[in-house]
Amino acid sequence: MELWYTEKQTQNYGITAKIKQTLHTEKSEFQDIDLIDTLQWGKMLVLDGMVMTTDKDEFVYHEMISHVALNTHENPKKVLVVGGGDGGAIREIVKHPSVEKAVLAEIDGRVIEVSKQYLPDIASALTGNPKVDVQVIDGIKHVMEHKNEYDIILVDSTEPVGPAVGLFAKDFYQGIYEALKEDGIMVAQSESPWFNQDLITRVYKDIASIFPIARYYTCSIPTYPSGLWSFTMGSKKYDPLQVDESKLFDPPATKYYSPKIHKSIFNLPKFVEQLLK
Amino acid sequence: MELWYTEKQTQNYGITAKIKQTLHTEKSEFQDIDLIDTLQWGKMLVLDGMVMTTDKDEFVYHEMISHVALNTHENPKKVLVVGGGDGGAIREIVKHPSVEKAVLAEIDGRVIEVSKQYLPDIASALTGNPKVDVQVIDGIKHVMEHKNEYDIILVDSTEPVGPAVGLFAKDFYQGIYEALKEDGIMVAQSESPWFNQDLITRVYKDIASIFPIARYYTCSIPTYPSGLWSFTMGSKKYDPLQVDESKLFDPPATKYYSPKIHKSIFNLPKFVEQLLK
Repeated sequence: MELWYTEKQTQNYGITAKIKQTLHTEKSEFQDIDLIDTLQWGKMLVLDGMVMTTDKDEFVYHEMISHVALNTHENPKKVLVVGGGDGGAIREIVKHPSVEKAVLAEIDGRVIEVSKQYLPDIASALTGNPKVDVQVIDGIKHVMEHKNEYDIILVDSTEPVGPAVGLFAKDFYQGIYEALKEDGIMVAQSESPWFNQDLITRVYKDIASIFPIARYYTCSIPTYPSGLWSFTMGSKKYDPLQVDESKLFDPPATKYYSPKIHKSIFNLPKFVEQLLK
Repeated sequence: MELWYTEKQTQNYGITAKIKQTLHTEKSEFQDIDLIDTLQWGKMLVLDGMVMTTDKDEFVYHEMISHVALNTHENPKKVLVVGGGDGGAIREIVKHPSVEKAVLAEIDGRVIEVSKQYLPDIASALTGNPKVDVQVIDGIKHVMEHKNEYDIILVDSTEPVGPAVGLFAKDFYQGIYEALKEDGIMVAQSESPWFNQDLITRVYKDIASIFPIARYYTCSIPTYPSGLWSFTMGSKKYDPLQVDESKLFDPPATKYYSPKIHKSIFNLPKFVEQLLK
């Protein structure tokens, strides 16, 4: 018998992956959580039927949501990740020597536990790292209750359906602005330029209306819809395009990010650039 | 009844697209040719079970195989496309005012005819353009029989199986070198950095052993395996990284390529850069 997992990324299009076995399946308080072992991508975390991360290509998302902001800020000490229960972003953040505290605000504790059990390489920094503070809390509430506290806030969310809808709202970005210090930077995952054009335009405009500097960059993630993924940055002071690439910190053990691509990722294909106008 | 077309891009992974109908199917002298109408990507040309091009994302491949070389050469007059029977590369090439002759050497005349019938926007330059010379011939033989004749040669091939195997051979690249003028440039499509790593390393090394300048760049093509696609350039004189971007020709009606991205596309993710070492 051959088992194939198929994710309909849109109503009319999807990806399909042959699986060895289903390692875990549950319905948490917030969502369906499945962990499957695929031949192509290794272990794969699936939330509400959507691929969140896989052994083989997780490095792209986790490096790219983290290092661009951390290498744009001159001295990031305190970092918040909203969502991101698999721990991949936290693992990358604590590579930066200046970071003293990385707070994870994940609403679904089960995602954290399943990731620790089945994706230990991704979740490696969630256990036993004195700089890491794992909190099973509502990230939106946390952001709204903190002012002038963080240097960097990363929004490592699922798709804008279900529990993650509020993470794409303008009010939330305003809350992030206020939770950041006077030279703080936010980065939000912002979906695919091929499939989510209206969302991208709205998120970019919202962030640009709140932060003096708004920037948008892309990367290649094969198991995400279309294979092209994007992040939107809002910054109070530092412009990622003004850094001196030769002086950037080169995070150890990366496979995608390097100081060499820090600026060029902001050079967008014409149809993507149009989305920001 | 729902009909879905699934392409296994590897043994264990694929894409699947809901289709309205199959518009054409035949077995030509060289390959299976299918033309299906999909809800997500519009009309889709499938050769030997592999997606070649679609209405919705064809612009990326055709712009990116063409304009990078044509904007690196200072005065490209005579251009050869080996393969590329759908005509998309030719359509882009003749946008450049300096081009006097664009020769298409496609081995399978049926691909040309099916494309003209079902993909008229892609094949638009194959009919009635005095600069375009459509030849149903073996492109390898054509290259081997011509010396010091072309300014640009583009290898717009299918996957390295079946009729296209010879298009990835070192002897063929040597033939291209000799068919090019003293300042000529070649570009070959070179598959996905996620799925075809050994091939990419070999093609790059082969081209770098023949041409004084070898360069490698990528772009986002959702319907191609992994969504990340690549091209390898061999150049006798001009370096794409040495052009003055502000003076580059901005081809009309492009949706991906612009002079602004001409250099940045060569800045590669770390794991891709490693393939070239």
